[in-house]
Amino acid sequence: MSLPVLADSVRLTADGVHILDRRKFPLEREWVRCGTAEDVAVAIEDMVTQSSGPYFAALGAMVLAAREASVLRPAEARAYLGRAADRLVSTRKTNNHLRKAVCFVLSSVDSAGSVSGTELVAAAESGARLGDERYRARSRALGTYTAELLPAEATVLTHCWADLYLVELVLAARRAGKEPAFVCTETRPYLQGTRLTAETLGEMDVATTVVTDGMGAATLASGEITALVTAADRVTMDGHVVNKIGTLGLAVAAHAFGVPFHAMVQAPDQAARTGSDVPLEYRDGEEVLSVLGHRVASERVRGRYPAFDVTPPRFVTTVVTDRGAFAPGRLGEYYAEGEPNQ
Amino acid sequence: MSLPVLADSVRLTADGVHILDRRKFPLEREWVRCGTAEDVAVAIEDMVTQSSGPYFAALGAMVLAAREASVLRPAEARAYLGRAADRLVSTRKTNNHLRKAVCFVLSSVDSAGSVSGTELVAAAESGARLGDERYRARSRALGTYTAELLPAEATVLTHCWADLYLVELVLAARRAGKEPAFVCTETRPYLQGTRLTAETLGEMDVATTVVTDGMGAATLASGEITALVTAADRVTMDGHVVNKIGTLGLAVAAHAFGVPFHAMVQAPDQAARTGSDVPLEYRDGEEVLSVLGHRVASERVRGRYPAFDVTPPRFVTTVVTDRGAFAPGRLGEYYAEGEPNQ
Repeated sequence: MSLPVLADSVRLTADGVHILDRRKFPLEREWVRCGTAEDVAVAIEDMVTQSSGPYFAALGAMVLAAREASVLRPAEARAYLGRAADRLVSTRKTNNHLRKAVCFVLSSVDSAGSVSGTELVAAAESGARLGDERYRARSRALGTYTAELLPAEATVLTHCWADLYLVELVLAARRAGKEPAFVCTETRPYLQGTRLTAETLGEMDVATTVVTDGMGAATLASGEITALVTAADRVTMDGHVVNKIGTLGLAVAAHAFGVPFHAMVQAPDQAARTGSDVPLEYRDGEEVLSVLGHRVASERVRGRYPAFDVTPPRFVTTVVTDRGAFAPGRLGEYYAEGEPNQ
Repeated sequence: MSLPVLADSVRLTADGVHILDRRKFPLEREWVRCGTAEDVAVAIEDMVTQSSGPYFAALGAMVLAAREASVLRPAEARAYLGRAADRLVSTRKTNNHLRKAVCFVLSSVDSAGSVSGTELVAAAESGARLGDERYRARSRALGTYTAELLPAEATVLTHCWADLYLVELVLAARRAGKEPAFVCTETRPYLQGTRLTAETLGEMDVATTVVTDGMGAATLASGEITALVTAADRVTMDGHVVNKIGTLGLAVAAHAFGVPFHAMVQAPDQAARTGSDVPLEYRDGEEVLSVLGHRVASERVRGRYPAFDVTPPRFVTTVVTDRGAFAPGRLGEYYAEGEPNQ
């Protein structure tokens, strides 16, 4: 079985960073070529990629910036890289991953001392490679710990798009001789469930069924679902799970019908003690009134689009991290062994 | 304020029955003219109208059948009407309203004795008028009893399309000096919430916000919702509410966050003791993989489309009927005063 295309959808080559256009996937499989770091920043702003995509794109963009700066003297080159990093981080204000990505490259360059030319590029490439490997390793740990929570015969309900965590969950389950089936919600308004999750699971030859977002509760009540498993954009130290809007309703229904809910996150967020510490993003309500660019509602009504919801810990069974599974009330233990090696 | 168009979307005229095409509404406002009773049957089969629409269409179709049979002798005319009735009832096997509609006309014709010609047509018209009035009176009672459950300042969350019950709820609330605002879920895959509910509320100048089906739980958790109010396709004698898929998830979330759920139905169904007595319709799963006729998912995955879900009585606060509001455990009392006058 080959890996699904979304497991490797940002590629650094000699002529730039190539990014699979997730706005059109899977109906069209177009790659956007970014010849410069600035091109990458614009692509991220234009939502060509999302989820883990901007992280990998920023790693690649920093290598492009190093190539652009390789003709400069060391101090000027470092300043150029710093400006590129600031530009990339500013493209998505709520995405912490971008900051981590540029740090990997800047740290590598700074460790190399006062460098320029091919040395500068080599240092940037080394940092980008490390950032790539670390993210994939943490995703692999998450997948492995989550797979351990599933029995040999499992049907998993998932919501939105868990990206590499999902891919690694399937791979880890198979290594353990398990073959989970999936039901995924379509996840309006952007339909990430139908377009990204279902397609990726299909590419991995996983038995996959799509339901609308309103069908989740009946699916959970039916007795066929072993576990609800989603990624989390953020988990607070007291176990509130912040994730794509719709997660809360599924978690509440799972709780009502005795189905465990496992939320996957690399690490709980030490900057967020509880749910109210996390500002929730509202997107343009007009998005709700259209489907794939086709206006559905008349002009008489307005739409509302909270991008995330917050699931209180009483509806969460397990928070799975790259250091194992925790009950939502015991997340402080994650940091008992210190900060993670990012 | 004029009535919304969906409050009167099936019209009997000299040249046939005119049915507003709900498949396209509100993006297009097209009326389908049915010149014969058979034309009406085909239109119902083709889903030109739904919810209460087939009921009113069947009333009109029986008048068309009487016109067609008016040249026949009384016994032949009655047989012709009987065949038309069977044809109409067979168009939607799960819609009990169709049987009631044709009964109104057949009873009126039978009461008139052995009639033909203009007498036959007049008897059919009289029966159709009575059927129309009775349905509207029951809807008005439902709206009035439901409005009594709302405070002066209310924001109501609703799902799918409650048809005349919704219109009468708004009218009754206004008669009582109340002005409820509404949040409605879009109700994938057919988008009745966006297309029918939101448009109708907009026509009635009600403050209306559309959310996706996945946003219901967060909306209920936010504290802004006074009550969840939906119609019910069927309510069992022990208080299970069978309604459009998605109702269950909203009811469970309403219960979790302390919001009452009021389900509107003309009467509980004496033929259904409990939830398992109601066969649930599965529609073509392909519907879930498309939006407004545009395919969204790739060919690798399948869809599933249960049309209804069943909400257990523990998640139901009130069942509102045309004889008032009942706790879900006390629906037997509805029949204490005998069968309703249908």
